[in-house]
Amino acid sequence: MLVSTKTGHARGAAGDLTKRAGDVLARLRAGHPRVHCITNTVAQAFTANVLLAAGALPTMTTSPEEVGDFVACADALLVNLGTFDEERRGAVDVALSVSAGMQRPWVLDPVLIDRSDARTRFARALLARRPAIVRLNGPEFCAVSGLEPIPSNLVAHAGEHGTVLALTGAADIVTDGTRIATVANGHPFMAHVTAMGCAASALTAACLAVDDDPFAAAVAALLMLNIAGEIAGKRSEGPGSFAATILDALYRLDAETLSARARVS
Amino acid sequence: MLVSTKTGHARGAAGDLTKRAGDVLARLRAGHPRVHCITNTVAQAFTANVLLAAGALPTMTTSPEEVGDFVACADALLVNLGTFDEERRGAVDVALSVSAGMQRPWVLDPVLIDRSDARTRFARALLARRPAIVRLNGPEFCAVSGLEPIPSNLVAHAGEHGTVLALTGAADIVTDGTRIATVANGHPFMAHVTAMGCAASALTAACLAVDDDPFAAAVAALLMLNIAGEIAGKRSEGPGSFAATILDALYRLDAETLSARARVS
Amino acid sequence: MLVSTKTGHARGAAGDLTKRAGDVLARLRAGHPRVHCITNTVAQAFTANVLLAAGALPTMTTSPEEVGDFVACADALLVNLGTFDEERRGAVDVALSVSAGMQRPWVLDPVLIDRSDARTRFARALLARRPAIVRLNGPEFCAVSGLEPIPSNLVAHAGEHGTVLALTGAADIVTDGTRIATVANGHPFMAHVTAMGCAASALTAACLAVDDDPFAAAVAALLMLNIAGEIAGKRSEGPGSFAATILDALYRLDAETLSARARVS
Repeated sequence: MLVSTKTGHARGAAGDLTKRAGDVLARLRAGHPRVHCITNTVAQAFTANVLLAAGALPTMTTSPEEVGDFVACADALLVNLGTFDEERRGAVDVALSVSAGMQRPWVLDPVLIDRSDARTRFARALLARRPAIVRLNGPEFCAVSGLEPIPSNLVAHAGEHGTVLALTGAADIVTDGTRIATVANGHPFMAHVTAMGCAASALTAACLAVDDDPFAAAVAALLMLNIAGEIAGKRSEGPGSFAATILDALYRLDAETLSARARVS
Repeated sequence: MLVSTKTGHARGAAGDLTKRAGDVLARLRAGHPRVHCITNTVAQAFTANVLLAAGALPTMTTSPEEVGDFVACADALLVNLGTFDEERRGAVDVALSVSAGMQRPWVLDPVLIDRSDARTRFARALLARRPAIVRLNGPEFCAVSGLEPIPSNLVAHAGEHGTVLALTGAADIVTDGTRIATVANGHPFMAHVTAMGCAASALTAACLAVDDDPFAAAVAALLMLNIAGEIAGKRSEGPGSFAATILDALYRLDAETLSARARVS
Repeated sequence: MLVSTKTGHARGAAGDLTKRAGDVLARLRAGHPRVHCITNTVAQAFTANVLLAAGALPTMTTSPEEVGDFVACADALLVNLGTFDEERRGAVDVALSVSAGMQRPWVLDPVLIDRSDARTRFARALLARRPAIVRLNGPEFCAVSGLEPIPSNLVAHAGEHGTVLALTGAADIVTDGTRIATVANGHPFMAHVTAMGCAASALTAACLAVDDDPFAAAVAALLMLNIAGEIAGKRSEGPGSFAATILDALYRLDAETLSARARVS
């Protein structure tokens, strides 16, 4: 059932999702949404550069006493668990309260929760605070849900928690519990650059700032980054030059390129 | 009045400032001054690489118990408020006490103080501790001074606080309350690389280590980075390759190139 | 005595060490060892990218409550003192206890201990906890040992502490107190990229995960990074492009290139 629903829907909707990604990109470039990222110190600089290349404006403070001010004037919020110190946990609490009060959507990236029980518990508690989108990989999905990362489990888990799941891997899968889409773009070098997944989550938050459908926003973000990755892959000799070139490709990306290259189903 | 003073002075002094920037660059390369940077985690790596490309040696510890030792053997100090955690606030206090005791000049970068009242208050308190140079952008100047970022206000504010203001934007303006200079070099990609402003502040501190006139040091730093940016802009396809290429251009910069390209008035 | 032992041994053993470095590289690519790095925030991203380019998988959390979980599922551990905050000191203690319990080797990088007494004392206390390898530069060796960084002192200090010393500089020297090797590869740009030494230490930990002889592992890591640096130096116009290109070269490195270029004695 799920599979046929998925395929049927995706075939009808793939073109729409791609076209919408082009609109989202245009809105990022025109509106320069502010994205507040509570993210890990390894990922901060690359994440900020991905957002800037796409047109968004990053801020990254994690001090509990000022994070509320920053979130209040941001258009979207990312909570990434990659650095899990006491200050950041306090900042997450303040940031989510401010977001909830302003009815502003947020994205959860439960980085490496498969490696630590404390982190898994924290991620589960955050799921109850209703992220619009959870961006994660296979092992992280297993840890948070206790389920194998197969499409039917993703659909069920997204439906149960009222969130969009954006699972990245060889191909990326996005589902809101009803709709499901697969993004088959990308390049192997993406796995050899630190913080690529963290940056994808931040870009998802940026797209969410300019599109009120979290499902479409997540597909748009993954299409943009993966297609920029494909373009960069052809121009790079390894992961070092690739990390610079993917920023160039994202900066130069347009709706026509998205449309010509998208492999959404 | 101010405008005519400014123009008259700048016309006479522009060539001198450019020539002095070449001397400052030569002294950075020969003396390798140590610059201790209390700066945010987003900016640390790029800032360190900008300093290394120019010939300076960065250190970046923020632990209150050892920052005093590091500042004591540094030639200049940068205080950047981009990460505003408790440890850094404590480190700033220790670092400024050590600097004051050694009569060593320091540079303040009040990053994003327009976004948070707590940060604005902290920046104002730091102004009272007499930074030699404050490097900031338009919205940050508004927040710290309550004034519009126009030349006459910059001159008045610098004069009142006995500091040099280095305001970066489409064109950069430097004033010590008497003299005023505009640096019109640069490239639009500079706004698309995270930490470019933070790195400019660090380079200003490096120049201050080898030139005892803060006005000339600030102009020198902005000329170097903006001219490196112009050169890099022509060789880059986007902000990713630009971030690498500006380091190359800064590393290869010389007095002749500064002199040929400077647009100081 | 030491010198003749050294030369005699190195001549006989240099080819073996180079061949072994090729094997180590193949094992990194096949086994993807996990390396947990407690390292400074300046170095995190570049260090992670060096490990990924070589085939290893980095993690970097420093929260005392979860670092034990991360170390328990890692294959090697790096302790780098470049950020010396209270959290990291607590994390180091937990991490070393877990490592010792699992009899897993670890690498110490006593960054900049020559600048701070507190850091020097901490580094000496860590030496007593038996790192398999200490990767450091000349001034750091002076601070930790009170001795000049000459080969005979290195051999004596390594023998006394039962560790391998890997001293990097114009040429790199590795000794376990009996054997000594010099790696004469590298490129001057390596000193102009922040965190190059920190990344070398992390790569040493990765090699230690796949070779149980710390002496051979340290030589392998330095050969890989220095030869990648030589290759990158010829293709770069400055330290910015070099930082990307050394990652490309490390990613593409193979046993044949190591063998053709190694200058071990």
